[in-house]
Amino acid sequence: MGESFGNWEMGHDVDVMPYITSANIAAGYHAADPHVMRETVALAAEHDVGIGVHPGLPDKMGFGRRAMDATPDEVRDYVTYQLGALTAFAEQQGTSVQHVKPHGAMYSMLSADSELARAVMEGVLAVDEDLVYLATDMNIYEVAQDMEGLRTVFEGYVDLDYRPDRSLIVEQSVENKDPETVADRFVSIATEGVVEAANGEEIEVPADSICIHGDNPHAVDLLDAIHDRIEEYDLDLVSLDRIA
Amino acid sequence: MGESFGNWEMGHDVDVMPYITSANIAAGYHAADPHVMRETVALAAEHDVGIGVHPGLPDKMGFGRRAMDATPDEVRDYVTYQLGALTAFAEQQGTSVQHVKPHGAMYSMLSADSELARAVMEGVLAVDEDLVYLATDMNIYEVAQDMEGLRTVFEGYVDLDYRPDRSLIVEQSVENKDPETVADRFVSIATEGVVEAANGEEIEVPADSICIHGDNPHAVDLLDAIHDRIEEYDLDLVSLDRIA
Amino acid sequence: MGESFGNWEMGHDVDVMPYITSANIAAGYHAADPHVMRETVALAAEHDVGIGVHPGLPDKMGFGRRAMDATPDEVRDYVTYQLGALTAFAEQQGTSVQHVKPHGAMYSMLSADSELARAVMEGVLAVDEDLVYLATDMNIYEVAQDMEGLRTVFEGYVDLDYRPDRSLIVEQSVENKDPETVADRFVSIATEGVVEAANGEEIEVPADSICIHGDNPHAVDLLDAIHDRIEEYDLDLVSLDRIA
Amino acid sequence: MGESFGNWEMGHDVDVMPYITSANIAAGYHAADPHVMRETVALAAEHDVGIGVHPGLPDKMGFGRRAMDATPDEVRDYVTYQLGALTAFAEQQGTSVQHVKPHGAMYSMLSADSELARAVMEGVLAVDEDLVYLATDMNIYEVAQDMEGLRTVFEGYVDLDYRPDRSLIVEQSVENKDPETVADRFVSIATEGVVEAANGEEIEVPADSICIHGDNPHAVDLLDAIHDRIEEYDLDLVSLDRIA
Repeated sequence: MGESFGNWEMGHDVDVMPYITSANIAAGYHAADPHVMRETVALAAEHDVGIGVHPGLPDKMGFGRRAMDATPDEVRDYVTYQLGALTAFAEQQGTSVQHVKPHGAMYSMLSADSELARAVMEGVLAVDEDLVYLATDMNIYEVAQDMEGLRTVFEGYVDLDYRPDRSLIVEQSVENKDPETVADRFVSIATEGVVEAANGEEIEVPADSICIHGDNPHAVDLLDAIHDRIEEYDLDLVSLDRIA
Repeated sequence: MGESFGNWEMGHDVDVMPYITSANIAAGYHAADPHVMRETVALAAEHDVGIGVHPGLPDKMGFGRRAMDATPDEVRDYVTYQLGALTAFAEQQGTSVQHVKPHGAMYSMLSADSELARAVMEGVLAVDEDLVYLATDMNIYEVAQDMEGLRTVFEGYVDLDYRPDRSLIVEQSVENKDPETVADRFVSIATEGVVEAANGEEIEVPADSICIHGDNPHAVDLLDAIHDRIEEYDLDLVSLDRIA
Repeated sequence: MGESFGNWEMGHDVDVMPYITSANIAAGYHAADPHVMRETVALAAEHDVGIGVHPGLPDKMGFGRRAMDATPDEVRDYVTYQLGALTAFAEQQGTSVQHVKPHGAMYSMLSADSELARAVMEGVLAVDEDLVYLATDMNIYEVAQDMEGLRTVFEGYVDLDYRPDRSLIVEQSVENKDPETVADRFVSIATEGVVEAANGEEIEVPADSICIHGDNPHAVDLLDAIHDRIEEYDLDLVSLDRIA
Repeated sequence: MGESFGNWEMGHDVDVMPYITSANIAAGYHAADPHVMRETVALAAEHDVGIGVHPGLPDKMGFGRRAMDATPDEVRDYVTYQLGALTAFAEQQGTSVQHVKPHGAMYSMLSADSELARAVMEGVLAVDEDLVYLATDMNIYEVAQDMEGLRTVFEGYVDLDYRPDRSLIVEQSVENKDPETVADRFVSIATEGVVEAANGEEIEVPADSICIHGDNPHAVDLLDAIHDRIEEYDLDLVSLDRIA
């Protein structure tokens, strides 16, 4: 959420916010600017949505979706910077940041290199030990589990495809998905902890949180389909804070 | 302090830090990057120097020294962003941000337009009401005094010249000054609350804090001369936190 | 045109290009990136549209719509940089840059300060004396007329309002306008060289070129209405190169 | 050369320019801004030094020294943009751009991926077929040799170490080297086309051009030592244009 920048608009935050329990909010590196951040935090606070920072690589031109050769120190410092910046806007609105979830190529870099992941997690813990770290694949989940004192929640994806090794296929632009398929995945992960990978194989995704991309032009359609299933299957949504 | 950026070095932070009681630290807009911020905060913490954020305009090419037509919302959001970012680095090192002091053209814009100044101060208060706002001229001091609940300290300058109206003459690059003249000004402000303006007129500068620019190539010479006078006149230096 | 940036899209270039004879193309400062520039130049070349550089201030966050305290040297160098960058893309596609037209707040700054305008025009002439300078108000037109050797065309606006002194009211975001009113203005400027200012006064606008903003969400509607009038009044459109 | 940025100074261009026959000038991505570019081009023109563009990755924070996952289209467009920008400054001063030499991590990326190298070279050729491409290792040299119509000169390094495979060891910051060793390498490459790699092995470096880094704090000492050898060995320096 909050991935507009200056005069450039992106996403459907006003439409999406009422459907969700926590939001990953861009913090000025891959997207957003201070004005957008303030408005997005205010929108989340208004809907009682848990605020998470969605830190990215310093690459607006590439929307943070291009891996770069950054050191553990560099990546940790980028996350710290963006986490702090978003926190100030949350404090201005009488709320706080609940969780951390790296964006795009930063996510992929942490997944591929546990040293990077560990540096980021240590940085997050040193800022505030109440923060929840959203682990988005098994590599990251394992590093997070090993990190003394870090609250972690595993997050599954329903609008991106998985490889059989449970890593995600991150594209430069988000592809459109069929709402019913996405809603099926939601139920499958939420109730059984499994999902079908891109090659058809069934894989375990032990997720307590499910991500929907706000920059997906059909995000609201996906969320509508998912909310129908939530009612149908009588599922409960709770804040990350109660899970971690 | 902390005005290096990437591979570009600026200032003499390591040499200057031992002499001072509080530091104004750049936060990534007019200067600095997350790596520089972390190192500068660590250096300040090591020397028990009070940490202040020195937020600037989003204009690295102009080093934040070019006024721009920004709205009160925009400027407040820029300060909030940078304040938060620096705070996270302070928290990582077990310390906190003590004060706020806008940089360069942002300072001049707030001085010239009380609506901008008020927006920024409201933003700072809403983030953390313990923060001290460094008022650097009478215009800003008056706005700050009117702001319910804002802790304020007036700050004088000894390495820049004053206009008779107590506004400062901010140049694109810091000029060299004679250490003895600068030290004379220090004593004059500290003991009598007066200083000589650029036109020779004696003006009141009721300052409880004195600023030395860390990007001045001769900052250490100035500080040496000032510290000789501090001993000679048996003056006490205390943290801003004890003054505000 | 060409005011998208990275993953952020803006404008309706593909729809607008078939209607126009010359395009003002952003060059990476207020908007655009090298990829967007290449695609926009290719699109213009395909439709045989004259390519102009639309240089802006180095302020993507403010979309180049906030005046800044820049010196004549700085503004001229910003124009030179962007002019050169766009020229390389034009050369790659076997075409060339035909004209120069400063964007947003840069335009307003040049209009308000003839020293800035003169510096930019001298810079343009020194790069290539065949370039046509689009003068967008009388202040700028007069400076251009005084500049030995500079080819100049006066340009009128039909989707922005004029003040009685023939300066333009530039807003942070382009407002919607009624297509018939805009088309009326087009005919009025094209055939009589006059238009109604915001206060109702009729003013002279001796324009040989008419500008339509490509970031206007209704640009194609405006252009449709205009093209109907062009047929109705049997007007001819020719390239700037044949006018200057 | 020209790697200062805004108020941050880097390099010793004024001291180095008198010693050299061609300069690789930064163009605003990894370093430099339009003002620095104008001054550097003017300095080169004054000393009759051949002007080359030194395009880098869009990463000032990392000084263009961090590889990023960019596509052939992206890298070619970055080079085109920077080449054009520098060309406009050269034209303003009545001179032109003679050669192209990618900087830092962009160089390494092109060396490792011939598809990237080919895209960049095609882009350069399409802008101006008189441009000389400086090939800095064998991988790049081979791609350049295969490119119909591209003028190429092989360039050797004397202030960086080679791996046995003739690739260069590019560090985040330039290390200091002994002037006599550097001068020995210069003579060895210039007269015999060989140099000692980091592992002690003697390797062929068939260079007609030798690079010295201007951001090396001891660049002038290195150049002094080299010029002594040039006299001692009675070597001739000619412009790239006469070699390619």
